[in-house]
Amino acid sequence: MRQSKLFTKTLKNAPRDEKSINSQLLIRAGFVDKLTAGVYSFLPLGVSALKKIENIIRQEMNNIGGQEILMPALHPAEKWKRTGAWDSIDILFKIKSRTGKEYALGQSHEEVVTPLVKSHSSSYTDFPIFVYQIQNKFRDELRAKSGILRGREFGMKDMYSFHLSRDDFESFYEKAKQAYLNIFNRCGLEAKITEGSGGSFSEKISYEFMVLTEAGEDDILYCSSCSHCVNVEIAKVKEGQPCPKCAKSKLKLGRASEVGNIFDLGQKYSRDFDFWVLNENGEKTYPTMGCYGIGTTRLMGVVVEKHNDKNGIIWPREVAPYMVHLLSLGNENKVVLTADKIYKGFQREGIEALYDDRADKSAGEKFVDGDLIGIPIRVIVSEKTLAEDSVEIKERGKKTAELIKIEKLSQYLENLSC
Amino acid sequence: MRQSKLFTKTLKNAPRDEKSINSQLLIRAGFVDKLTAGVYSFLPLGVSALKKIENIIRQEMNNIGGQEILMPALHPAEKWKRTGAWDSIDILFKIKSRTGKEYALGQSHEEVVTPLVKSHSSSYTDFPIFVYQIQNKFRDELRAKSGILRGREFGMKDMYSFHLSRDDFESFYEKAKQAYLNIFNRCGLEAKITEGSGGSFSEKISYEFMVLTEAGEDDILYCSSCSHCVNVEIAKVKEGQPCPKCAKSKLKLGRASEVGNIFDLGQKYSRDFDFWVLNENGEKTYPTMGCYGIGTTRLMGVVVEKHNDKNGIIWPREVAPYMVHLLSLGNENKVVLTADKIYKGFQREGIEALYDDRADKSAGEKFVDGDLIGIPIRVIVSEKTLAEDSVEIKERGKKTAELIKIEKLSQYLENLSC
Repeated sequence: MRQSKLFTKTLKNAPRDEKSINSQLLIRAGFVDKLTAGVYSFLPLGVSALKKIENIIRQEMNNIGGQEILMPALHPAEKWKRTGAWDSIDILFKIKSRTGKEYALGQSHEEVVTPLVKSHSSSYTDFPIFVYQIQNKFRDELRAKSGILRGREFGMKDMYSFHLSRDDFESFYEKAKQAYLNIFNRCGLEAKITEGSGGSFSEKISYEFMVLTEAGEDDILYCSSCSHCVNVEIAKVKEGQPCPKCAKSKLKLGRASEVGNIFDLGQKYSRDFDFWVLNENGEKTYPTMGCYGIGTTRLMGVVVEKHNDKNGIIWPREVAPYMVHLLSLGNENKVVLTADKIYKGFQREGIEALYDDRADKSAGEKFVDGDLIGIPIRVIVSEKTLAEDSVEIKERGKKTAELIKIEKLSQYLENLSC
Repeated sequence: MRQSKLFTKTLKNAPRDEKSINSQLLIRAGFVDKLTAGVYSFLPLGVSALKKIENIIRQEMNNIGGQEILMPALHPAEKWKRTGAWDSIDILFKIKSRTGKEYALGQSHEEVVTPLVKSHSSSYTDFPIFVYQIQNKFRDELRAKSGILRGREFGMKDMYSFHLSRDDFESFYEKAKQAYLNIFNRCGLEAKITEGSGGSFSEKISYEFMVLTEAGEDDILYCSSCSHCVNVEIAKVKEGQPCPKCAKSKLKLGRASEVGNIFDLGQKYSRDFDFWVLNENGEKTYPTMGCYGIGTTRLMGVVVEKHNDKNGIIWPREVAPYMVHLLSLGNENKVVLTADKIYKGFQREGIEALYDDRADKSAGEKFVDGDLIGIPIRVIVSEKTLAEDSVEIKERGKKTAELIKIEKLSQYLENLSC
């Protein structure tokens, strides 16, 4: 992408009403635009980063057998009345159409996916079933806050699994946990598997995937010697007490943001929708369900909360909108022609690059914008570097730069991205 | 994808309340599932076909300079009140939140994109600007009908262009028309550029892209000697009269479905949102806007309306959920092992295939399902074909099949897909 064509502009100052680091940086750098409290548009750089996140999730969900579907956001009220959620869930947006028909806007999709899977399964040989979608959700929040961490409309991946035995469910539950850790790891985040409450309809424990950050809305108690971690909401221990699992360290208290969760739904929804099959022994069996959520836009926000410095965002490689930021400094013919040639080479070789070809910006302005946008690898073409038939390469977040001969650039970048 | 793992099932009979060919076939073949009138879920095969359509559109929009963004569906009422559409558009879904704040659900995005682009442009050098998104839209239709052709929630690509002169707008308008024809052509559709009414706020002519089909909701008058085509709604001529453009043929009347449209919005929205810049002569200028829509899910429905026979769907190559349908017939060891090996070869070589590996289905059942699902190329492995070290290849919609040596299969498919 040529930056001279990019319609978004970086902003010197963050909007006054945006207090969180994620929204300040994402708005200033031109990734998102705020439409109203808790509702954001994603601009070209933001769409690019979001697609990277979505594709990581897709790969990991497909790896554990997930089949991608796409359910609507507009749900007939009947489905929500059937599970009792129409009256019990306060953040449900409700709509009355001009014909009088009532709808809910999906804040989760158990009410849609359960009858859907029911209509496509009739025998125990059809199980287990794993489906997921990536789609926008809606929540009538009293107060939207923390930028894109808690919105009224937000992107989400939600997977649902259906099993005919607890054992089968438990074994998939463990696989899903590992897939989630892979996802967060690839996004440059260290997530702690945290015991949380099961939600309103379940007394079971759920697992929340928590990333330590001051921007979060949860408090967690965690052990630094083992993986034990619990949401203070359900904790029976306190800060400073020895870890109840390994007893080696004292529990620490930390502020955290939930980037994912997995719920054991039991037979709540299969019973509500009268969804049963005969198992291999001929017994009437209501499938046990699991639900596995990741807020895709929230995840992007948490990545920014964790990866930034005073100059801007520092995107982890796999979720960066582009791998390379190519900067041409100065408008001398040789510089422009060489930078153009390098950019065309990138396009040929499939190296994703943002090319700062703006003729009316100084070197200083290009550096400032580059740091703010936060693309991992900066490649500079200037009279100075060309005097040595080279470009200068600097990784975002590192202090040292190095000169690389132009003829060796492709090979160098290929090695870096491995 | 192994068909034994695919959670969807084909249905022998279409649901009684679905009258259109598109929804009957798409539901029976397991591409979509109806949630409620005018609202559908897309199942794995449906998601796959829809992504093919979306990516064709993306490529063609990027080719003419489009930058992809993603705007929300939840719009604050203020924006819609500002343009007068809050009261004048009857299909607008309206929501009141529990805090009393009012929202509209996006049925189009002029009200969001205009202030968004305004906040990112300050100089005439920023123009022209072309942005688009692919996202779900909502319409409070009195009556949903024609399957996925006219829904209450549906996928749409909407592009918006901003220009500082009429000339610049007109020249892009022509480019957009050509891009649209490319898109429909790649989807296997012949679309007629039809003069239509400009909509409520404009007295200008819009262009509708019409595909002749009995499932459509419009009547058009078209000439078979030249490209002249007009919606009867605004036509000043009648069926049987000579073409007013070329005079060579008599106008024919046909039922058609609108797969896309492009509108000259003039300065309606830039004036409503007080969006102006100084042009290169220092004159205050309100950008002229264009709007370019394609219903992605409707397009999929029209493809099915045009490409089917009594046995099922016949997907055009570029929008097929998979390129190849591999069928193993019989459960003999050699057949299963060879089919498995061919399937793994496809995966290695990036040939997208649905593999009917179901052990409990007869050859007859597999043929029937294959015809219904409609993947372009069928590859059969059976004892009979293996006796000649071959597979049988048949293109969907053609009567003749041919035997191809297994060792030559990859090369054969590669040539076919060129």
